[in-house]
Amino acid sequence: MEKSIEKKKRPAKNRKRNHHQGETAGTHMTASVPRAYLSDTPADVQARLKEHRFDHPHTICVTDPEDRLVGVIALADLIALPAETPLNDAVQGIPSVRVDEDQEKLASLALHHRLSVVPVVDHGGHFLGVVPPLALMNILRHEHVEDLHRLAGIKRENHQAREAMESAPLRRARDRLPWLLIGLAGSALATQVVAQFEAQLQDRIAIAFFIPGLVYIADAIGTQTEAIAVRGLSLSHANLRTLLGGEMRTGVLIGLTLAVVTLPIVWLIFADLYLGLAVAVALFSAGCVATTIGLFLPWLLGELGTDPAYGSGPLATILQDVMSLLIYFAAVNFFLF
Amino acid sequence: MEKSIEKKKRPAKNRKRNHHQGETAGTHMTASVPRAYLSDTPADVQARLKEHRFDHPHTICVTDPEDRLVGVIALADLIALPAETPLNDAVQGIPSVRVDEDQEKLASLALHHRLSVVPVVDHGGHFLGVVPPLALMNILRHEHVEDLHRLAGIKRENHQAREAMESAPLRRARDRLPWLLIGLAGSALATQVVAQFEAQLQDRIAIAFFIPGLVYIADAIGTQTEAIAVRGLSLSHANLRTLLGGEMRTGVLIGLTLAVVTLPIVWLIFADLYLGLAVAVALFSAGCVATTIGLFLPWLLGELGTDPAYGSGPLATILQDVMSLLIYFAAVNFFLF
Repeated sequence: MEKSIEKKKRPAKNRKRNHHQGETAGTHMTASVPRAYLSDTPADVQARLKEHRFDHPHTICVTDPEDRLVGVIALADLIALPAETPLNDAVQGIPSVRVDEDQEKLASLALHHRLSVVPVVDHGGHFLGVVPPLALMNILRHEHVEDLHRLAGIKRENHQAREAMESAPLRRARDRLPWLLIGLAGSALATQVVAQFEAQLQDRIAIAFFIPGLVYIADAIGTQTEAIAVRGLSLSHANLRTLLGGEMRTGVLIGLTLAVVTLPIVWLIFADLYLGLAVAVALFSAGCVATTIGLFLPWLLGELGTDPAYGSGPLATILQDVMSLLIYFAAVNFFLF
Repeated sequence: MEKSIEKKKRPAKNRKRNHHQGETAGTHMTASVPRAYLSDTPADVQARLKEHRFDHPHTICVTDPEDRLVGVIALADLIALPAETPLNDAVQGIPSVRVDEDQEKLASLALHHRLSVVPVVDHGGHFLGVVPPLALMNILRHEHVEDLHRLAGIKRENHQAREAMESAPLRRARDRLPWLLIGLAGSALATQVVAQFEAQLQDRIAIAFFIPGLVYIADAIGTQTEAIAVRGLSLSHANLRTLLGGEMRTGVLIGLTLAVVTLPIVWLIFADLYLGLAVAVALFSAGCVATTIGLFLPWLLGELGTDPAYGSGPLATILQDVMSLLIYFAAVNFFLF
């Protein structure tokens, strides 16, 4: 009757990820729940509830004689049962998770199956306890703050955003500088790219005018993709090829729109069709490149055993900037020189 | 006994915001819960539970004769009571929310008070129903996805990130283009700023080399601040002056670090102390400006009655870019010309 949720892939990597995050079903579980055997009667269970106080008394967990979870009975349903019926008839099947399941997967499972309580079993399927609703709610809030911080490149994973907001400036700067310093190294690369095209810039200074706008747009498109990817890769079980295909087509449409809007404006204002074409090609490419990197990088980090969200933001952004600049200058070379 | 959570400020604006979001405590409430009067006995309530099935049977809501909420009794505690005691002794006080309370506030309240069920009352304090744990979990997930989308400038608020990831590319492009087109208009402003300094660029082309890095760093610092602000302004009740002060001090520390790291490198490579100083001043200012705008803008949007997160990302980013460029060129003028 019990549907056990199996880990579908990469148990070793999942364990590594759990180790990294430190938080599993076991961390949030309480063992203090009423238990019953199939052969017990509602009267037996009610007697147990009067004798003993449980942390989470509203879900009676029913096991077989080997302590394997068979299912659950809500306390309210138990009360409505005639005192001497066997529990057998009233037991409801319920998905369970292994004790080392990642907390984020646990929360997604609960939402997907509409469970406010999730039973936890060991590797042999023996019942250990349940993760109660408040723990599930705390996990959801924690993942929320964590995703925002990771998307933005903030190191410490505060359980409370309040904490991040009110803690001492020095600690806050320390949490935020690591990714910014990596970004600064990436910026040196971007500086290098522009420096390579010194001759072209010297020749036609207007080329420089479009650099900040291009970097901004590549960043903005990339951040959109990363925001979707960070959540999507953990919630969705679609494979990467499908996801990448859809996101790249979206990028083509976005890039095309931005290019079509920009081309006539630049052409008109700078009286230079070819400059307009170079900027339009760069914007179109930024749409394609930023979406691809924004989805591929979190996926790659996930495959390497890191949490998908980890560092995806700041790392992807600088890659997107450098790629967009290279394409811009290639287009400049092609159209203007 | 009941601690009613009062709206502390701006009820009119909160209502506007609710209207904007559409989701309140009332949306998520179920009225199908067991009720009892203080004069009832545990036996009375148990009889009612056997007669009738409730959506959320595990919290018995106790009211006075005018239907005002007095408190709650957990079903498990009720069972443990002697059958003929008055409920009076066992009732627990619990915070409640008004029926038009914003769903995000509701979820924060539940986490803060460690409640897995939140009672809902009307404006006269009469008991209406409860928001059950699953609804609270769905709100938390919804707010999570919504914050990510708003931070990134994605229009549609999908309840499932999965949906955003697997929906048709055309629709996805439509959801993402509005903020990108506003960003494109902002980019035109950035182009204009650089164009104003054509003569300086012509004279010393190396000035252009640092534009992409500066824009990237301003974006990165700003995104960090916005990620913290988006969550913090709804979770934290500290006033803006305190928050702004802390965030600005953090910005000074971040800007100072980036400037100190960059100055000797630029000086060494370009053999030009003054160019190094201009870049360092720009980076330092980017730290100050990006944190200030990143916190002030979501707060301002909140004061104007919009959700703090709404549009904070893309709008703040382009402002930060333009400000950082202006400061960079001002520093260039000061040190190099």
